[in-house]
Amino acid sequence: MKPNGFLRSALAEDGAFFRTEEILSWLASRGATNRLCVERIPFRELGQWVADDSTGDLVHRSGKFFRVHGARVRTTLGRMTEWDQPIIDQPEIGILGIVAKEFDGVLHFLMQAKVEPGNVDGVQLTPTVQATRSNYTQVHQGTRPPYVDYFLQRTPDSVLVDQLQPEQGSAFLRKRNRNMIVEVRDDVPVGEEHVWMTLGQVKRLLRVPNLVSMDARTVLSCIPLIDPHTPAPGTKGPGAAALAHDCDARCVSEFGAALLASAAERRATACRDEQVLGWLTDLKCRHELSVERIGLDSARGWTRGDLAIAHDGGSFFEVVAVRVEAVNREVTSWDQPLVKPVERGLVAFLVKEIGGVLHFLAQARIEPGNLDLVSVGATVQVALGAEKLGDRASWPPFADRVLDADPADVVYSCIQSEEGGRFFCVENEYRVVRLAPDEELPTPDNYLWMSLRQLMDLLRHGLVNVEARSLLACLQLSD
Amino acid sequence: MKPNGFLRSALAEDGAFFRTEEILSWLASRGATNRLCVERIPFRELGQWVADDSTGDLVHRSGKFFRVHGARVRTTLGRMTEWDQPIIDQPEIGILGIVAKEFDGVLHFLMQAKVEPGNVDGVQLTPTVQATRSNYTQVHQGTRPPYVDYFLQRTPDSVLVDQLQPEQGSAFLRKRNRNMIVEVRDDVPVGEEHVWMTLGQVKRLLRVPNLVSMDARTVLSCIPLIDPHTPAPGTKGPGAAALAHDCDARCVSEFGAALLASAAERRATACRDEQVLGWLTDLKCRHELSVERIGLDSARGWTRGDLAIAHDGGSFFEVVAVRVEAVNREVTSWDQPLVKPVERGLVAFLVKEIGGVLHFLAQARIEPGNLDLVSVGATVQVALGAEKLGDRASWPPFADRVLDADPADVVYSCIQSEEGGRFFCVENEYRVVRLAPDEELPTPDNYLWMSLRQLMDLLRHGLVNVEARSLLACLQLSD
Repeated sequence: MKPNGFLRSALAEDGAFFRTEEILSWLASRGATNRLCVERIPFRELGQWVADDSTGDLVHRSGKFFRVHGARVRTTLGRMTEWDQPIIDQPEIGILGIVAKEFDGVLHFLMQAKVEPGNVDGVQLTPTVQATRSNYTQVHQGTRPPYVDYFLQRTPDSVLVDQLQPEQGSAFLRKRNRNMIVEVRDDVPVGEEHVWMTLGQVKRLLRVPNLVSMDARTVLSCIPLIDPHTPAPGTKGPGAAALAHDCDARCVSEFGAALLASAAERRATACRDEQVLGWLTDLKCRHELSVERIGLDSARGWTRGDLAIAHDGGSFFEVVAVRVEAVNREVTSWDQPLVKPVERGLVAFLVKEIGGVLHFLAQARIEPGNLDLVSVGATVQVALGAEKLGDRASWPPFADRVLDADPADVVYSCIQSEEGGRFFCVENEYRVVRLAPDEELPTPDNYLWMSLRQLMDLLRHGLVNVEARSLLACLQLSD
Repeated sequence: MKPNGFLRSALAEDGAFFRTEEILSWLASRGATNRLCVERIPFRELGQWVADDSTGDLVHRSGKFFRVHGARVRTTLGRMTEWDQPIIDQPEIGILGIVAKEFDGVLHFLMQAKVEPGNVDGVQLTPTVQATRSNYTQVHQGTRPPYVDYFLQRTPDSVLVDQLQPEQGSAFLRKRNRNMIVEVRDDVPVGEEHVWMTLGQVKRLLRVPNLVSMDARTVLSCIPLIDPHTPAPGTKGPGAAALAHDCDARCVSEFGAALLASAAERRATACRDEQVLGWLTDLKCRHELSVERIGLDSARGWTRGDLAIAHDGGSFFEVVAVRVEAVNREVTSWDQPLVKPVERGLVAFLVKEIGGVLHFLAQARIEPGNLDLVSVGATVQVALGAEKLGDRASWPPFADRVLDADPADVVYSCIQSEEGGRFFCVENEYRVVRLAPDEELPTPDNYLWMSLRQLMDLLRHGLVNVEARSLLACLQLSD
């Protein structure tokens, strides 16, 4: 990849093969062809899944895929300090991989049209390949998922992104996936479910509700918009002039320029890098999290009905069962449990300029599935937890500021949904609200203002949760 | 702290209060005053510690401090794939804290003279304070360890280092300590066991065997010698000229200059930052570690004698018991178990210039106490494990290259010992060997050449093991 190849691709709003509108039509046709029939069924009608006799845990007859058991959670951060809940245990690390290749000097990404039973609108744009470890360790190369060998047989030079990133800590037990982007120089066969797009085209589709899948968003969130060692456009230094010209020529918005400057700043103005680490260190030392594995039937405050395992207070989520029939899949029909939300959620960042540099208000969160106690989330995250948007009394800090924001200050807003292979129509509103530089907000000690460079430094080490990563992937450089 | 305050302190070979020779005499006098009588005793003579009836685990009667139990380890990286061993379980996060303050414009560190039962030569130089969580959460402020309030009541601006860092993964179960340096502007009372020193003075004492404790070394290892955003002396850019002048004036060796350039490089020449992450990601995905807790008496291949719990093959370490009598301690006599090595160990980095930048050959290691499967160690680590320096057949890769090195290529060599509160005279030779730029060594896939900046980026996120950190702390800027 050429220097700042990601940025140039993000600024390319049309691709070498298709205009974005054409990709939209193509996606619609893929969705029509690969339609899934999804029907909610009672648990007793599940054929491939059973409730374990002694625990009530939901397990696949083969022992594969995942298991839904119970968790007894105790923690010291947040309003609730003790609760039980169902949790998904899927210890295997899967690959979420995107193949990239330069066409006409611009990096393109091979995206896939894919349907999942929990998708809101059927088809979504996903990475080139999503493969569980069981998938890709097949002995016979011929039975491996298409494209997976690009990731297994990569050269070190071709690796643009290769990071272990955590999934939803509210619903998964320490689940991580391997997020990869590999650049290929040879010809790549393009199947009928795949299409080459620039990063700018994907960014544009991130303005359409529920179209770019969570799996795609998490991989794209690992992309540094600008190399932190490169001077930001508008500042001095080698390369900055060329970059500035490029950005000017491609209609970077004032907010986009602020994002790039924040991603490339050399000295954070709100706090030093060591303070960011110290903030997390301090919270890890002062707080506790205990997650005890319990049987699903032992989860207090949850009731198993015919059609759902639901929280008695109507919070969190429900576990439901579905039967799926597919037209164009390796298996043409199956059944499985899914996690269903009780309502639409909200994931939002407050941003503002501090000392002339755009900063993000990050939140340290303790979620039961966290690998190391604390993870870094968006300013507001109301999703699959005890808090509900429908109940203002349950709102966490800053939810009111985000929801009551002047529309002129909302720099991004779109409905996006979570991964449809585990989540049944889990929709969240993703929102970025820009505050005036002089608006002072009191911040509890698990919140910290940081630049995009500082946030990305945490992200590359797997410390930023999937909801926040998803939202970062949505950030737009143009209007 | 002023910009590059750490570097200026490292270049100050004398302090505002004492010359280094005076500190050596002072340390000797503290050692004489605070002498410990340490006697090995049979386990049955332990008064405060007992063997748990059902498991044989060594536990304190109060339930406090730590517990020695057994671990059944299975892994896929390394020569041994399955073994049992004793392991220390001490879940509390302690503070290792150094108070820093500017005198005559140079940052000084308040170091403590301290004796521990397992120390080789009695007294060592330790951080200002070492406190367990039980120590520092005392309700009454008066009973807290001296100086600990500087760390508990710090302001964000005063924090120079605040990182969670892992301890020995070969002997501790997921043990971490909080490594802190806090800068104070007010007057600090200096007790009779404490002394102000520049970083240059500590560096000089790191050439004396067994004098600077492991606890001090791990905190000092978190110090970036040079801010990675600062141009290295000898390169162009604002501040570089002043820095170069400073370095010239203070006799920085050619190797010291190479270290600074490696810590400040903007573009690694051997591999990109993403490749460093990808290297760890790949190993985490391909390898496994299972650590099952078992009773100490159930550890296969270990025999409990009167005086030691020892490995039948004579490898790893022994667990022994000691009775301690102290002259100048809060408790004047006690007994406790300690981990005793079977022989002296070796911790070594191979370094060489690649593309004109000094690189370190890092090793990814799976140790039973690791928090996240893989940690990053030095090129060679033969300490408290299955490998023995006395048995050439057991040597890991590169041990021969380190031990057979031409003395002219050994840029650092000194005996240092591990923490004397848990380890009984555990000595390791610390060594840095510089290869000629054209010496090609085949490297197995769990080894990677990286710059000091890249290594420090992993270190600040807690990914570098304590043995490697210890050695990094020893790196000398002058001859």
